[in-house]
Amino acid sequence: MNLTIADVRLTPILVADPPLLNTQGVHQPYTPRLIVEVVTADGVTGVGETYGDTKYLEPARPFAEKLKGRQVSDLNGLFVIADEVSVDDSRVSGQVDVGGLRGVQTADKLRLSVVSGFEVACLDALGKALGLPVHALLGGKVRDAVEYSAYLFYRWADHPEGVACEKDDWGAAVDPAGVVEQARLFKERYGFTSFKLKGGVFPPDEEIAAVRALADAFPGHPLRLDPNGAWSVETSLKVAKELGGVLEYLEDPALGVSAMAEVSAGTGVPLATNMCVTTFAEIKEAFSRDAVQVVLSDHHYWGGLRNTRQLAAICRTFGVGVSMHSNTHLGISLAAMTHVASTVPNLQHACDSHYPWQSEDVLTRRLTFEGGRVAVSDAPGLGVELDREKLQFLHRRWLDDDGALRERDDAAAMRVAEPGWVTPSVPRW
Amino acid sequence: MNLTIADVRLTPILVADPPLLNTQGVHQPYTPRLIVEVVTADGVTGVGETYGDTKYLEPARPFAEKLKGRQVSDLNGLFVIADEVSVDDSRVSGQVDVGGLRGVQTADKLRLSVVSGFEVACLDALGKALGLPVHALLGGKVRDAVEYSAYLFYRWADHPEGVACEKDDWGAAVDPAGVVEQARLFKERYGFTSFKLKGGVFPPDEEIAAVRALADAFPGHPLRLDPNGAWSVETSLKVAKELGGVLEYLEDPALGVSAMAEVSAGTGVPLATNMCVTTFAEIKEAFSRDAVQVVLSDHHYWGGLRNTRQLAAICRTFGVGVSMHSNTHLGISLAAMTHVASTVPNLQHACDSHYPWQSEDVLTRRLTFEGGRVAVSDAPGLGVELDREKLQFLHRRWLDDDGALRERDDAAAMRVAEPGWVTPSVPRW
Repeated sequence: MNLTIADVRLTPILVADPPLLNTQGVHQPYTPRLIVEVVTADGVTGVGETYGDTKYLEPARPFAEKLKGRQVSDLNGLFVIADEVSVDDSRVSGQVDVGGLRGVQTADKLRLSVVSGFEVACLDALGKALGLPVHALLGGKVRDAVEYSAYLFYRWADHPEGVACEKDDWGAAVDPAGVVEQARLFKERYGFTSFKLKGGVFPPDEEIAAVRALADAFPGHPLRLDPNGAWSVETSLKVAKELGGVLEYLEDPALGVSAMAEVSAGTGVPLATNMCVTTFAEIKEAFSRDAVQVVLSDHHYWGGLRNTRQLAAICRTFGVGVSMHSNTHLGISLAAMTHVASTVPNLQHACDSHYPWQSEDVLTRRLTFEGGRVAVSDAPGLGVELDREKLQFLHRRWLDDDGALRERDDAAAMRVAEPGWVTPSVPRW
Repeated sequence: MNLTIADVRLTPILVADPPLLNTQGVHQPYTPRLIVEVVTADGVTGVGETYGDTKYLEPARPFAEKLKGRQVSDLNGLFVIADEVSVDDSRVSGQVDVGGLRGVQTADKLRLSVVSGFEVACLDALGKALGLPVHALLGGKVRDAVEYSAYLFYRWADHPEGVACEKDDWGAAVDPAGVVEQARLFKERYGFTSFKLKGGVFPPDEEIAAVRALADAFPGHPLRLDPNGAWSVETSLKVAKELGGVLEYLEDPALGVSAMAEVSAGTGVPLATNMCVTTFAEIKEAFSRDAVQVVLSDHHYWGGLRNTRQLAAICRTFGVGVSMHSNTHLGISLAAMTHVASTVPNLQHACDSHYPWQSEDVLTRRLTFEGGRVAVSDAPGLGVELDREKLQFLHRRWLDDDGALRERDDAAAMRVAEPGWVTPSVPRW
């Protein structure tokens, strides 16, 4: 058995994305992802995926070159390589990362997102080579299926007229009735019993009304609201007070550790985050100030599945809850999320996943939700198979793009519908 | 490849131990260890070792039974089994654990020490079955050799007259000159360049003099002093002040988080610990109070090599240093320590090891120190081989013992030389 990495392939693609609204704007009709393939000397191929914007693609290319000739089992070495890969300063804006809505951008965050795609690909290849599922490489599953929540979005039925896009049948959701109808569809189609609403789109009172409507329509179902830091401390506390009885947790109501700590001190509603704590460096202050009660891990942020497990261990040690965040992703990442989630003992909440919103994928067979759960695969590696025709089709779309869609830009997409739209300053309300 | 565990063998042994002094008393001439063998359905055998006292042996037996039929790769499942194994309340004394000098005993600590022996055996078997070294199962080594420190002890030349024992050629060390001579031998025989002195044996002024003598004899060599919590806060601060210029760190000067935090606040000398922080549950308070600056991990305490890595990740996240503690152990554990240490990026200090004090082992070939370092094995598994004759010889010694030596009891051993000796109350000085 030869575990030397003989080849690494990077394939940027554009995948269809519905007109999902958030506080920054609206999803573009197509969003970039990067598909990573790692091939061993024995011809075993492992796959991974991560963000596909240029700022990720740029460091991914030298990373891929450095990976060749190394052992596919050398996962600790990925971080050594990452430190050697330079990141263009101009890509690190000091601004909130629109693509990830993951707090302020830094070079390290970019690097870790790049590592995550390669780490998953290496784990997939290693698992296939050894005949072991990825969860076994992480110490073995402690559950046979992983529960996900329905990820509700305010949305339009279609992208603005004249914009090239793929259509879907979800319809619009811009008020409480539309949100409840969307939740009903999610439950019917996938069996989800937890609901998360992406907020920060409409004035807080309208979003409070939507969550109340969900609570009425689905009594006893865990509910969450996530305005992506759009609110002031005062507004956050008002919402927490009004929805205290129905929320499982409130997600990133305000931006930054100080604001979150203030909100946390003023309410009994647990605060979850994927913006305030997105790197190991941000943990100490946030935990010591009790700014968050649940960290929503995301292996694309944290540098892969093994780091996600380390994050979970830290949360367990400090009595902080853990669950899983999701951004637009395909089946490779859903499989990766499911494997790692199956190994984390202290996973107390249903994980988020955008996957139902993605009508396109690069797999021969889509992953499925049964009763809101994804079964943990026991096949070698991730248990997914790349469909090369689909991959090439989506790569062709990326090649044919004039560059406008190669960087996720929710504000630009919003300007098509609302000329003059600028990213709202924070706090918005 | 069949990774199902078909058999588990437990072999308690007694191994020779020199008359090493600590604040509780002196090592007995023989000390119990438990050798764990895990055998897969394909006949691959993995080995581990842990504490061998009855209180560990008792839960290890049902643990071994529960392990049969499970996958050797199911390492997360070991903790599920551990929770199912009952621990006799009478074994959990609420007293400081003499055998480990590891703070107050709890059922969870006992269980984790049991897990550690099985986890290492499973990793060894898994590595052998897959053709991978244990470090690769932990994500791959980031260094090719692991540095250890010389573990200096006040000691007598021989055990008390009339006590059956094995002899060695180290001679006595009961004053500064003796300690310096022992350090010289350690450096000559193994190449160590860091020195740790086990203190808490003589009045602090004598131990200060010994450390000063070491500093004079070995300028520039990192030095440590470890009285196992024998001092008051006042004494600890006095020692820290007098040795501030020469100590790499001061180890467990006082007992408990509050005392350690007080010492820490009063000195610039870093405090290390393997008594104040020995479980994940103890981390939050100790770190938040800045009671310790270096955690000395020990995979026998923390539940194995993977938990040791999690501990290291937590330390890294909170800006706390990490190195490695050691209690009396054989070559299996030294190999395990070396594998995990090779994968921890933030290992800033030479690790402790008792191994040079152990003249007996259960391996066909002893591990060696070159320039104070142990080379990281790239052979499948741990890279060690059990010598069944030696194992049986040491097991026979355990069988033949009337029970007096089956529980480590440093105070009992001391009473042979000093009738009327009782474990000193803390703080001793």
